[in-house]
Amino acid sequence: MVLPTDLFPHATDAALKTVEAHQDPQDLVFYAAWFCPSAQRSWITLEEKGIPYQYKEVNPYKKEKHFLDINPKGLVPAVEHQGKALFESLVLCEFFEDAYPTHEPRILPEDPYEKAYARIWIDFVAKALVPGFMRLFMAQGTEKQDAARAELYDSLRTFSAQIKGPYFLGEQFSLVDIVIAPWVTRDVIAAEHRAYNRGDVAAEWKQYAGRVEVRESVLGTKSNPEQYVDVYAPYLKDEAQSEAAKAIRAGRVIP
Amino acid sequence: MVLPTDLFPHATDAALKTVEAHQDPQDLVFYAAWFCPSAQRSWITLEEKGIPYQYKEVNPYKKEKHFLDINPKGLVPAVEHQGKALFESLVLCEFFEDAYPTHEPRILPEDPYEKAYARIWIDFVAKALVPGFMRLFMAQGTEKQDAARAELYDSLRTFSAQIKGPYFLGEQFSLVDIVIAPWVTRDVIAAEHRAYNRGDVAAEWKQYAGRVEVRESVLGTKSNPEQYVDVYAPYLKDEAQSEAAKAIRAGRVIP
Repeated sequence: MVLPTDLFPHATDAALKTVEAHQDPQDLVFYAAWFCPSAQRSWITLEEKGIPYQYKEVNPYKKEKHFLDINPKGLVPAVEHQGKALFESLVLCEFFEDAYPTHEPRILPEDPYEKAYARIWIDFVAKALVPGFMRLFMAQGTEKQDAARAELYDSLRTFSAQIKGPYFLGEQFSLVDIVIAPWVTRDVIAAEHRAYNRGDVAAEWKQYAGRVEVRESVLGTKSNPEQYVDVYAPYLKDEAQSEAAKAIRAGRVIP
Repeated sequence: MVLPTDLFPHATDAALKTVEAHQDPQDLVFYAAWFCPSAQRSWITLEEKGIPYQYKEVNPYKKEKHFLDINPKGLVPAVEHQGKALFESLVLCEFFEDAYPTHEPRILPEDPYEKAYARIWIDFVAKALVPGFMRLFMAQGTEKQDAARAELYDSLRTFSAQIKGPYFLGEQFSLVDIVIAPWVTRDVIAAEHRAYNRGDVAAEWKQYAGRVEVRESVLGTKSNPEQYVDVYAPYLKDEAQSEAAKAIRAGRVIP
């Protein structure tokens, strides 16, 4: 089987320029896969904050020994920081916020209530929107695709009704925007193959997605859209063998 | 259909004493259901920190109008704080940490790396251990029960191998311990009905569970063990109609 990562082993377009600008050794080594939506969350956070990091591309289907040594779970994204490893995309985003307190902008509100409110919606993205997109990609046949699209639209409308504008929480570009940004970047796949249309969800969603996708940190971590479509081809045929795909298929939580 | 909450509408034993001691109006109103493991997490955190709160029992199967007005999702636990609502058990625990900074003890480490490490394991409890216990409760027939128990034991051993002792992170009783504590409190159900045995998991797990369950905040939010067994009876027959039970059955994320 030819894996998409054999055909497209690295980032392209603006994301490639960002990778090339982060090859020098740094205290913080960022392990990512260019096409991985979880990795893009952490990558956007690094770019937003201007944190010095060394980018290392990992092929999740052919993991190298050093990577597995520091991160036995083997998932991207991961970081190596002063000889210690951390992983899980949200954990990394919060780690960057905590470990680099002088690097602006902050991605979570300072006010405890506002921070908790942000966490409720970050949780909603993780529990409803990400599995919703994944199930739509993997749904086979018109009936299941229609059902998956309707369910995703419902969840996206719930989310959209709370957008304060220009970003989810208002003026602050926050972790809520960062966790959904990789799926805004990849919704072209659903548009091309699953009759998804931003405007059909809600006018608020279309406007919001248009603003998020042109944010400099999102653009700077984005590869050629056609490569996303190609790399997700196994998902569209429900043949993907990633841990996330297996979890969706088995009705389990995405690890 | 007679619901378990009709038979057992409120907490008993030590938990009842704690409820009775928190009936006076306070700035913080805590909405909980005595048998709900998510609610117990937030309740333990309130008790650990000695935060003033008013306890209000919610019957999740018969929600009252005021509760749905402040919390349209209708899930417990929830809080009302200065006229604003928040929900999601983990969000609430972090909110208590942020909004009451002078209330000791802290439940997350100050060091950014140690805090991120704690978050990795909190995430593991949410993604592997909680669904693992739920699936074991709901599994029907010896073969499925054996498989569910073996899978849960695997996950518990992964967790147990990282226990520093006496608590998960060492001396500090932390949010990692708090998120698993309600399931330590409820594992009597699996012991009575699913051939689960702490010692069969690992000696480390048995010792750790024994320490967590006698923590004052855990004891003080614990009802009569036989009432947990009775209230979980619909789960054991796979007839439960809670949102969590429906999610497990449908292969979806627990909301």
